[in-house]
Amino acid sequence: MNLLLLSNSTNHGQGYLDHAMADVLSLLGSVRQLAFVPFALFDREGYAAKVAARFAQEGVTISAVTPDLAGRELLEEAEAVFVGGGNTFRLLDTLQKTALLHVLRDRASSGMPYLGASAGTNIAAPTIRTTNDMPIVQPASFDALGLVRFQINPHFIDADPASRHMGETREDRLREYLEENEATVLGLREGAWVRVEGERTTLGGANGARVFRRGADPLELAPGADLSDLAG
Amino acid sequence: MNLLLLSNSTNHGQGYLDHAMADVLSLLGSVRQLAFVPFALFDREGYAAKVAARFAQEGVTISAVTPDLAGRELLEEAEAVFVGGGNTFRLLDTLQKTALLHVLRDRASSGMPYLGASAGTNIAAPTIRTTNDMPIVQPASFDALGLVRFQINPHFIDADPASRHMGETREDRLREYLEENEATVLGLREGAWVRVEGERTTLGGANGARVFRRGADPLELAPGADLSDLAG
Repeated sequence: MNLLLLSNSTNHGQGYLDHAMADVLSLLGSVRQLAFVPFALFDREGYAAKVAARFAQEGVTISAVTPDLAGRELLEEAEAVFVGGGNTFRLLDTLQKTALLHVLRDRASSGMPYLGASAGTNIAAPTIRTTNDMPIVQPASFDALGLVRFQINPHFIDADPASRHMGETREDRLREYLEENEATVLGLREGAWVRVEGERTTLGGANGARVFRRGADPLELAPGADLSDLAG
Repeated sequence: MNLLLLSNSTNHGQGYLDHAMADVLSLLGSVRQLAFVPFALFDREGYAAKVAARFAQEGVTISAVTPDLAGRELLEEAEAVFVGGGNTFRLLDTLQKTALLHVLRDRASSGMPYLGASAGTNIAAPTIRTTNDMPIVQPASFDALGLVRFQINPHFIDADPASRHMGETREDRLREYLEENEATVLGLREGAWVRVEGERTTLGGANGARVFRRGADPLELAPGADLSDLAG
């Protein structure tokens, strides 16, 4: 497989995808035509236009996937795919209802370059049970692509000791996840990403990640860490 | 109906339920025996012990609802109920699997005093689609008690203009909710609560709330505001 799974599409103070574009282009290699899945946002056309404008700067053309037969054919023949961020429940629900989920899984499993950001990274994990998003629609199942064996929590944020807010911290939420599930979770800070190249999985970008496992203390990982043995 | 729906069980710097206890006791009236639903947390026994210790200070005895026939009988005969906070998905899933959801609905609809905090407040709305919680388990349905006609977002927090975090703000998330759903949402800040007494619904506690409706600007509500006409 050939995956680049970004925590976030935009770093604070930078333009869309700027922080990761060198690695995005490395993922794409010689590919200059990218199928874009815009289902995580409500305004699919506006979203596709934004993505097309950004990739035009790199000489890469975008074709937006639509929730119909034409979209299926586009995905089946795509040279590479980008699944954009937004709401993970809406994204997964649309992929399930259109039966595009298994097309995506088949193509990515066969080596088609897969770029995900935020919600598009969430669905690369076995389930969406570690998304931060609000459950605005109900998908038939929380099961997702399962391209990696571990769960990912994008936009991972450390607790702010100065906060007076009493809602659960991200770490509280992931501890609750592990009370009910066994899969390891990678808390991917903004600026960080997961790169899968064949058998090798590494932590890329900046700011690192935290690994949460049932019955163990959280483990801090620095950029460049080898994730190949991160069990599911 | 006779409901007290708290945004949060604990205010920063105060003890458990301290900020709302005067109104909790007003809800209970002469009742001194409270059924407690601990399903939102993993450690039900520890949770029930914490709640029992707090209410003992007020001369109120707690009976913990168990996910079995004895729990059903307890709920059917309870004089009042408290549904505690934690993870909303876990809470709803357990209430669905045990068929206690409709017992709770029937009893609360018939006037039994209902105290909810956080997840226990989320499930008083028509659905859990405006919870902040992580979807750590998958309930069969997101449909909840529907004791009020509007959705509630507990722990509502205004965007922090100094934040460098690029994840969605709460307002972003509620705007996404309204892209997919028509129900009005009450964003209930910490310290605030909803009080339902018969036909009258009011905003209580401190810090106010924000109303989100499709196609309209958010509306700020001050403590004491009348919510009786808040459409679903």
